[in-house]
Amino acid sequence: MFVLITYDVSTVEKAGQRRLRRVAQACKDYGTRVQKSVFECQVGRSEWATLRQRLLDESSPVEDSLRFYFLDETAVGKVEHHGAGKPKDSNAGHSLLKEMSLVSSPSSLMNPAVRQTGPN
Amino acid sequence: MFVLITYDVSTVEKAGQRRLRRVAQACKDYGTRVQKSVFECQVGRSEWATLRQRLLDESSPVEDSLRFYFLDETAVGKVEHHGAGKPKDSNAGHSLLKEMSLVSSPSSLMNPAVRQTGPN
Repeated sequence: MFVLITYDVSTVEKAGQRRLRRVAQACKDYGTRVQKSVFECQVGRSEWATLRQRLLDESSPVEDSLRFYFLDETAVGKVEHHGAGKPKDSNAGHSLLKEMSLVSSPSSLMNPAVRQTGPN
Repeated sequence: MFVLITYDVSTVEKAGQRRLRRVAQACKDYGTRVQKSVFECQVGRSEWATLRQRLLDESSPVEDSLRFYFLDETAVGKVEHHGAGKPKDSNAGHSLLKEMSLVSSPSSLMNPAVRQTGPN
């Protein structure tokens, strides 16, 4: 399954900065960072159950916001990226963006999975 | 159509801060902010063409990152929200989150469109 994770973690206090690091690390362990607070994860159901619980455990239900979007193949095939920013972190595996980054530019612009513009 | 917009706008320079405001304003004009840099937009095709072009015009292809995800009804029905954060801005219209906010708590927790946890 393909899960898009977006989060806002409050970093007003040091505890929040620690939560932010831990939430990001959990996402990094399973997926690819595509923006500062946006990760794309291609995971199996049991992996997702583990990651989801870890994110809930590491975040504050009062101060932080987590959103999970479940995309099917059609939606994954339509993702548009514009401008700067390649994945900064990834796991060993499966990510859409990982695949994209393996295609050398400029042919990556034509990758059917992600339409990408900009100077990457 | 349901478009999820995520962005990273570089705010190192004043010009970036201005771009950030303008990108956010374009999104606000058409959708609902669900996180700091994440908007959900229920738009018609021509509206989307207008918004998309405006976002490309307002952002820097070198410094900023924009991602557009196109969700179908099934995906919209599976969005999970956890923790803090209600929409801070919305247009007059159509957003999923707008609909959610019209349902008084705690029944909103049972809203089939968005599973939501936390103390909102």
